[in-house]
Amino acid sequence: MKLDKIAILCNGRLNGKPDTEITSFGNLMNPKKGEIIYIISPDYMEKAEITEAEAIIVPEGTRKSKKPTIEVKNPRVAFALIVELFSPEPKPELSVHNTALIGKNCSIPKNVHIGPYAVISDNCSIGENSIIEAHSFLGKNVKIGSGCRIFPGVTVYYNCVLGNNVRIHSGAVIGSDGFGYEKDGAGYRKIPQVGNVIIENDVELGANVTIDRATLGSTRIKSGTKIDNLVMIAHNVEVGKNTLIISQVGIAGSSKVGDNCILAGQVGIGNYAVIEDNVTVGAQCGVPMKKRLRSNEVYLGSPVRKMKEMAEIFALEGMLPRFFSKFKRLRKDMDEMKNQIETDIREKDKS
Amino acid sequence: MKLDKIAILCNGRLNGKPDTEITSFGNLMNPKKGEIIYIISPDYMEKAEITEAEAIIVPEGTRKSKKPTIEVKNPRVAFALIVELFSPEPKPELSVHNTALIGKNCSIPKNVHIGPYAVISDNCSIGENSIIEAHSFLGKNVKIGSGCRIFPGVTVYYNCVLGNNVRIHSGAVIGSDGFGYEKDGAGYRKIPQVGNVIIENDVELGANVTIDRATLGSTRIKSGTKIDNLVMIAHNVEVGKNTLIISQVGIAGSSKVGDNCILAGQVGIGNYAVIEDNVTVGAQCGVPMKKRLRSNEVYLGSPVRKMKEMAEIFALEGMLPRFFSKFKRLRKDMDEMKNQIETDIREKDKS
Amino acid sequence: MKLDKIAILCNGRLNGKPDTEITSFGNLMNPKKGEIIYIISPDYMEKAEITEAEAIIVPEGTRKSKKPTIEVKNPRVAFALIVELFSPEPKPELSVHNTALIGKNCSIPKNVHIGPYAVISDNCSIGENSIIEAHSFLGKNVKIGSGCRIFPGVTVYYNCVLGNNVRIHSGAVIGSDGFGYEKDGAGYRKIPQVGNVIIENDVELGANVTIDRATLGSTRIKSGTKIDNLVMIAHNVEVGKNTLIISQVGIAGSSKVGDNCILAGQVGIGNYAVIEDNVTVGAQCGVPMKKRLRSNEVYLGSPVRKMKEMAEIFALEGMLPRFFSKFKRLRKDMDEMKNQIETDIREKDKS
Repeated sequence: MKLDKIAILCNGRLNGKPDTEITSFGNLMNPKKGEIIYIISPDYMEKAEITEAEAIIVPEGTRKSKKPTIEVKNPRVAFALIVELFSPEPKPELSVHNTALIGKNCSIPKNVHIGPYAVISDNCSIGENSIIEAHSFLGKNVKIGSGCRIFPGVTVYYNCVLGNNVRIHSGAVIGSDGFGYEKDGAGYRKIPQVGNVIIENDVELGANVTIDRATLGSTRIKSGTKIDNLVMIAHNVEVGKNTLIISQVGIAGSSKVGDNCILAGQVGIGNYAVIEDNVTVGAQCGVPMKKRLRSNEVYLGSPVRKMKEMAEIFALEGMLPRFFSKFKRLRKDMDEMKNQIETDIREKDKS
Repeated sequence: MKLDKIAILCNGRLNGKPDTEITSFGNLMNPKKGEIIYIISPDYMEKAEITEAEAIIVPEGTRKSKKPTIEVKNPRVAFALIVELFSPEPKPELSVHNTALIGKNCSIPKNVHIGPYAVISDNCSIGENSIIEAHSFLGKNVKIGSGCRIFPGVTVYYNCVLGNNVRIHSGAVIGSDGFGYEKDGAGYRKIPQVGNVIIENDVELGANVTIDRATLGSTRIKSGTKIDNLVMIAHNVEVGKNTLIISQVGIAGSSKVGDNCILAGQVGIGNYAVIEDNVTVGAQCGVPMKKRLRSNEVYLGSPVRKMKEMAEIFALEGMLPRFFSKFKRLRKDMDEMKNQIETDIREKDKS
Repeated sequence: MKLDKIAILCNGRLNGKPDTEITSFGNLMNPKKGEIIYIISPDYMEKAEITEAEAIIVPEGTRKSKKPTIEVKNPRVAFALIVELFSPEPKPELSVHNTALIGKNCSIPKNVHIGPYAVISDNCSIGENSIIEAHSFLGKNVKIGSGCRIFPGVTVYYNCVLGNNVRIHSGAVIGSDGFGYEKDGAGYRKIPQVGNVIIENDVELGANVTIDRATLGSTRIKSGTKIDNLVMIAHNVEVGKNTLIISQVGIAGSSKVGDNCILAGQVGIGNYAVIEDNVTVGAQCGVPMKKRLRSNEVYLGSPVRKMKEMAEIFALEGMLPRFFSKFKRLRKDMDEMKNQIETDIREKDKS
């Protein structure tokens, strides 16, 4: 692949010989001859120049080099395009395996893949170019859009709906019962969970994620949101657009998370909480039940506080041991002074 | 369905026309004509009356209304019964799919469902009316009671035992090895995990739950207990009756949890801990190894403390920044006073 | 089985009749006649002697007893060998089930088990005596060493590599995409994850574990490491040798964990953190991004601090309520003294 073609692909400005031959992408740490690498800041230019790399993707405005460079707005995005070019994701062929089981009244176009031992229940519909891999299970009335990829061993319960270009990794479970029980005598009566899950376009769900169906209505993940492995999303939760939810986060029932939020790893969110738009919640934070986090803020701690406040508290906690001894000294000073004053008074009285 | 029939179903007192026609259940937020809704407190009566709802389930003692009402002890329980009536859970037919594999010496009555590509190993027994869905796997000698529902893709290892009316959601793994290793030279030797898991009647397990088999003896979940998604229960743990364990809780080896407890989301419990009966443990709590939590108490924090104490500590932590500056002022006051006194003394000495 | 044979098996010194007949292993709490039990310390000798047990495994140097004993270096290791002897793990027969699907160009020796409905994609290789159970899925080019056991329902994505004697429990997902996205306009662009996962010899992975493939290069778990259920290991992480990772731990991208570490339950580790060798991280700890934990240390808390420091802080937090009231008293004392001194001064002025 010639370098000028690559410059066009990633919408960048080429500095250097257009017909430089690129054979693959490389790693900044140890690229080989023929490979193209990227740097995210001009600061790394020197490091990049002394490697074997054939060419370098650089941020706009980076100085010229002896090596050919392509200036782009966002080197990471450009590199993503180049990686896709040289190392496209392997995809199974668009055909239905003869061991796949398809129920009655399903709407399935020809250009889909349905893998070995997949089970599609009655009344399902699948969009064009979608891939449902081995051992996956779709319950009754499941609707899946076009361009989706469902990796092996995913389970989607009845009535759930997926948009277009949704990716779901292995072991994810969509539409299991919400956790709803009502004390009834000595034990609990199950509250039926008759809603569903709706996952909008361009959502990606990690391995072993679980998203529960709503009690009534829908649990909803809005378009462009990306969810990491082992995340739990409870019944009737609504997650906004283009939000990132990192691994092992748990969101309890009926909570709302806004657009463009970031929930870092292992965050826990209580029932009926509201996270407004553009909020960042730090790793392992705990958001209490019904709490509202304000838009454009960053939060830390369990229970959460605004970042600045919590960072100060964390620092002060670290100073507690020193502080306690300072306090003791002060108490002692005080007592000595009291004694001294009392002694003074007594002496004055005597005199 | 006539309203008087519904009143009988949920053991309630009807106020209004017995032959009012009910077509479905509705949501308090936005019910349609023909639908019945519920309120959990008389406070919501005004809100409920101005909706389109056809009738209202109300707590006993709620005032009459222009709309027909049914007075019941617990509106949520009544509503659960009505939802089940109008929207029963879809169930697969009671038959064995021709792709299901059944081992030798299994005891399987006629009125069960065994789904496509399910694998039942040798010497298993399954009770009447139980449902084992697609892609599920039962190891050797697994015993499952009657009326159970095992959703698609559940794995039960050999020798494990399930009671009656047990529900297990997709991706759950029952009876995997406990985490037991013993340092042996440079590395670890595996301690064989030859016990099993026993799950008693009326237990429900969420999606992707894992319950490990005991080293010796049994890991046991007692009757009526409900466990949410992605919970981890380690080897030799014993969980009591009618306990609720919310999502992502982890219980380490050989711990005991009593009856009627609530463990909120993401709680972690160390090895050999004891949670007595009727204990509530707040979200994200950490219960140290061998710690005992006393019955009828509520606990918060990591490490846990009794709620009242921990709530005070959380509040005081929030006051630390203000407190540190107050302390500094006090120290300064003190030093000034000392100086003043010393000055006084010196002046006295002079005079 | 005669006792002298057992003594040889566990490399111990027999005290008592060599031909004592042992029928099984027992539990210290309640062993039956014919059973052999173990104690981990001479302190339990008295307790062990009054049971029905036929013989006792004891640590070297424990006093003789009326019951036959076998002195060993590590009674737990000896007991593990005895349990394996009397209760060997059930293993499926070494054959390929007729419903297993094997792709093209696979290298599969005769002495392996491939279970029902397992799917092996093209170009896979599997070593001697390995067991791949029902419903498992291997993507293209997966390499699995000899003596491995892959329990039912495990998914291994394309290009991943497992060493020898690797055990993976049900529901584990190896090689799913790392969580990598780059802001691009209003939404996110996916960074392709074209690396793989390498799992070295003698590693065990618990149920529903997820290990993501690297962006470039490899996510790597080194030999002898044991990972408990529901652990999440992100892209490009490297975990050293003989490390124990307890349930529900999450390790974020590009972090390194050393050899012989212990990460207790629910620990969270931020991106690019480094845990040196022989480090113990307490349950629920949070290790901040890029933080380095020093070798041979124990850490507690979130954010983590060295154990001694954090234990003191936890204790002082518990004293905060008492401390705040002590502080108020001190403030009051101070104010009174100030008043008194001012009064003195005023009186002096008057006089």
